[in-house]
Amino acid sequence: MGEKVEQFKAYMARPLDLHMAAAVLDWDQEVYMPEEGINARAELLATLNTLAHELETADEVRYLLEAAEAEVAGMDYESDDASLIRVARRDYDQQTKIPAELVARESRATSKAFVAWRKAREEKNFTKFQPHLQEIVDINREKAGCLGYKEHPYDALLNLFETGVTTAQVESLFNELKAGLVPLLQEIAARPPVDDTFLVERTYAEDRQWELTLLVLRDMGYNFKRGRQDKAPHPFTTNFSSTDVRVTTRLSPTLPQAGLLGSVHEGGHALYEQGIPEKFNRTSLGGGATLGLHESQSRLWENQVALSRPFWTYYFPIMRAFFPDALHDISFDRFYRAINKVQPSFIRVEADEVTYNMHIFARFELEKDLLTGDLKVADVPEAWNAKYESYLGITPPDDAQGCLQDIHWSHGTIGYFPTYTLGTAISAQLYAGALQDIPDLEAGFTRAEFTPLLDWMRSKVHVHGRKFTAPELLRRELGQNISARPLLDYMRKKYTTLYEL
Amino acid sequence: MGEKVEQFKAYMARPLDLHMAAAVLDWDQEVYMPEEGINARAELLATLNTLAHELETADEVRYLLEAAEAEVAGMDYESDDASLIRVARRDYDQQTKIPAELVARESRATSKAFVAWRKAREEKNFTKFQPHLQEIVDINREKAGCLGYKEHPYDALLNLFETGVTTAQVESLFNELKAGLVPLLQEIAARPPVDDTFLVERTYAEDRQWELTLLVLRDMGYNFKRGRQDKAPHPFTTNFSSTDVRVTTRLSPTLPQAGLLGSVHEGGHALYEQGIPEKFNRTSLGGGATLGLHESQSRLWENQVALSRPFWTYYFPIMRAFFPDALHDISFDRFYRAINKVQPSFIRVEADEVTYNMHIFARFELEKDLLTGDLKVADVPEAWNAKYESYLGITPPDDAQGCLQDIHWSHGTIGYFPTYTLGTAISAQLYAGALQDIPDLEAGFTRAEFTPLLDWMRSKVHVHGRKFTAPELLRRELGQNISARPLLDYMRKKYTTLYEL
Repeated sequence: MGEKVEQFKAYMARPLDLHMAAAVLDWDQEVYMPEEGINARAELLATLNTLAHELETADEVRYLLEAAEAEVAGMDYESDDASLIRVARRDYDQQTKIPAELVARESRATSKAFVAWRKAREEKNFTKFQPHLQEIVDINREKAGCLGYKEHPYDALLNLFETGVTTAQVESLFNELKAGLVPLLQEIAARPPVDDTFLVERTYAEDRQWELTLLVLRDMGYNFKRGRQDKAPHPFTTNFSSTDVRVTTRLSPTLPQAGLLGSVHEGGHALYEQGIPEKFNRTSLGGGATLGLHESQSRLWENQVALSRPFWTYYFPIMRAFFPDALHDISFDRFYRAINKVQPSFIRVEADEVTYNMHIFARFELEKDLLTGDLKVADVPEAWNAKYESYLGITPPDDAQGCLQDIHWSHGTIGYFPTYTLGTAISAQLYAGALQDIPDLEAGFTRAEFTPLLDWMRSKVHVHGRKFTAPELLRRELGQNISARPLLDYMRKKYTTLYEL
Repeated sequence: MGEKVEQFKAYMARPLDLHMAAAVLDWDQEVYMPEEGINARAELLATLNTLAHELETADEVRYLLEAAEAEVAGMDYESDDASLIRVARRDYDQQTKIPAELVARESRATSKAFVAWRKAREEKNFTKFQPHLQEIVDINREKAGCLGYKEHPYDALLNLFETGVTTAQVESLFNELKAGLVPLLQEIAARPPVDDTFLVERTYAEDRQWELTLLVLRDMGYNFKRGRQDKAPHPFTTNFSSTDVRVTTRLSPTLPQAGLLGSVHEGGHALYEQGIPEKFNRTSLGGGATLGLHESQSRLWENQVALSRPFWTYYFPIMRAFFPDALHDISFDRFYRAINKVQPSFIRVEADEVTYNMHIFARFELEKDLLTGDLKVADVPEAWNAKYESYLGITPPDDAQGCLQDIHWSHGTIGYFPTYTLGTAISAQLYAGALQDIPDLEAGFTRAEFTPLLDWMRSKVHVHGRKFTAPELLRRELGQNISARPLLDYMRKKYTTLYEL
């Protein structure tokens, strides 16, 4: 370990600690904070975030970084030192390219936009949100200009969340996915609908649901000595080091699979963070690499694992034992078909595996056109509804179930949505790779044996921390680019059987 | 509000925020943190505390403080601005008088001492802790020298916790208390012992105990929109502003009054913090004034209120309804006598109202002699046991139940113990004042009406934040110095009736 790299790491540990401390405060705010603590909490978070930003963007960082860059020049690209400095440079450039004035303007705009969005959604009235969305689009356009791009302004924003992936690559991937998924959905829609009334109409005791989420998390390999689960209105995963990674879930009296799948999804994120080597803690290589890679882990556990037949071979008997009143007259096949029911719907976060990506296609296209100006902000509701008609064959009855449903725009984030589908595609690529290396992988699921899958992910994905971009990692571990084929193959196979296509 | 005072406040808000953020992390560590998160948490806390200390002791503070001092010169002593700058100067001097090298040395010494203390206590072997205690005594002697004092080195340390009170004043107060309490205890010991076997031997469902603590906290006026209660192995109160003040409690299957009194005690601390005017948040005037004043609030609610006959007139029927198996054959009088049972015991935190202060007398005298060198560290166990024999008539069977019982010395804190008895004396002074102003105060307790008492404390104590020292506040609000008389009168009256002396 070089001396200059050491100096850089020592300096950066402080702002990284401040971010982690802020994450503890965020967790507390979502999970346990009493309601009137909110204003004081906002002050504390502002102080921590501002101090971290000042430390991260100080001139000193540039000097330390340049000295460390000279020291690692010529080192192996994959070495810890070279990777750390490479990733730190990327972070530093992103943080310093956007002027403080623009950051402050964005912060003020999104504070107001969030309040306006909540009100607009309540009143199902887009026009209340419209001027705020306009400001956010304008600011994002300005941001893209500061960050710089070669082909499309969207590239600059996308790169904040998914380094090394271009808008053109996303378009090409999405086109291939659409070509496979749109016909699949049409074939499914032509089949008799699946009956899931026993999930929708019967009730499932919450304490039992809670117990089940804990059981499954433990079986997956989630380490409760380095984490915990709590309830939260909007489930999320957070970490304060790889040795303290927490998940949250939300349960409802009906739809018992929803809370469980939510826990498993967050558990997938958490396994990734718990798997990051401890040597990367308090450095620029700590944590999961990109949003797409993160989502690949959560969606893999949620879909390929927890919506699979082998998984439920083990857990359905437990489920029936936990909820005898609701499930005594339900067979394994009926249950399994019901939790995998495909049905176009308005709300992304409630969508099934097949229709989920359609929501993302719509968002991505709208965002891209907003950024170039091809779509006027005033025309968003109409354009939104047209996309839903085209991809899902349904039209939202109002803006609350349409273009106002997601929080992301009001938070100021544009360029984030594609990572959901990128992650889903990557999850299928990784899963196919694991299946190839471990032929009896799914047989293990029928005995709640997930260690082989977790170990595979640890060695192929988690071990690298933030060292590689998603394309780099896939090329290194699978010899592949990001690709639609494994996802399409997986979907086609699963739903052909399920719906007897 | 003067411009220089404003500048000073704006600067100080940041380090104060860092302390509050650290308090959130401490709370989480005690209450919910998974066990293997501990090392990372220590790093986060070290970063927050170091950054706060750097900001608080920077040269800039001195310039800002001097400018503000010039601005407030001649202002009313009680004005917010003059008080804020006066208190900030005291904080600044305390923080800067001790050199960084000594702070670091103390931090290293106490880290090791804590581990050694825990091991020594487990093994009931003082000699393992002895060299560490020696180092802590030496460091505290050095600290006293840095801080400066007129009469006794103990003054310097005591002032860190109880500004404006001298060792001589504590000695005089303690002597008066001893003169009253030692004979009282002897008279009680001559009476037939109270039967409390139904508390010690029967079990009380923990969920019901929990419910009761919440009920009583709410009745006391604790605002759950600005706080919450959780379980913790070592109960404490913490606050992150006056709008987020949290308590913790510990329940055991027997001794149902212990958990409740613990909640009420912490609730007393919390009512104080919730009562600090919001205008003092993020300033040097925020929070309770001194440890003695803080303890006056907690011990008042615990003793004068929750161990009183009127209090139980209301709550005993609820208690019997909550725990019918354990209390169906217990009368009000038997219950009330049992929870007020006086019995010399080894462990301070389990002591009753009458013997509690004896523990403090012993600690104070030992600490004082350690500091002057009149007591050698090697002789602590023997001296400890002699004090217990003299004040309580019992001799600890081993050091774990003797001189190793408290965590404070291993934490490096010397000079803190007297505040427990100072607070107890003040609680009786305040309570007598409230009784004088509100003649039907205790009649209200029989209907769970505590608002008059809380409002009185709000207007006499809480409203001032950190503006006044304990002696200043008592002179201003009661026209009294800190005095033993009200406590002795209260004790004599209560226990004469209880024990038919």
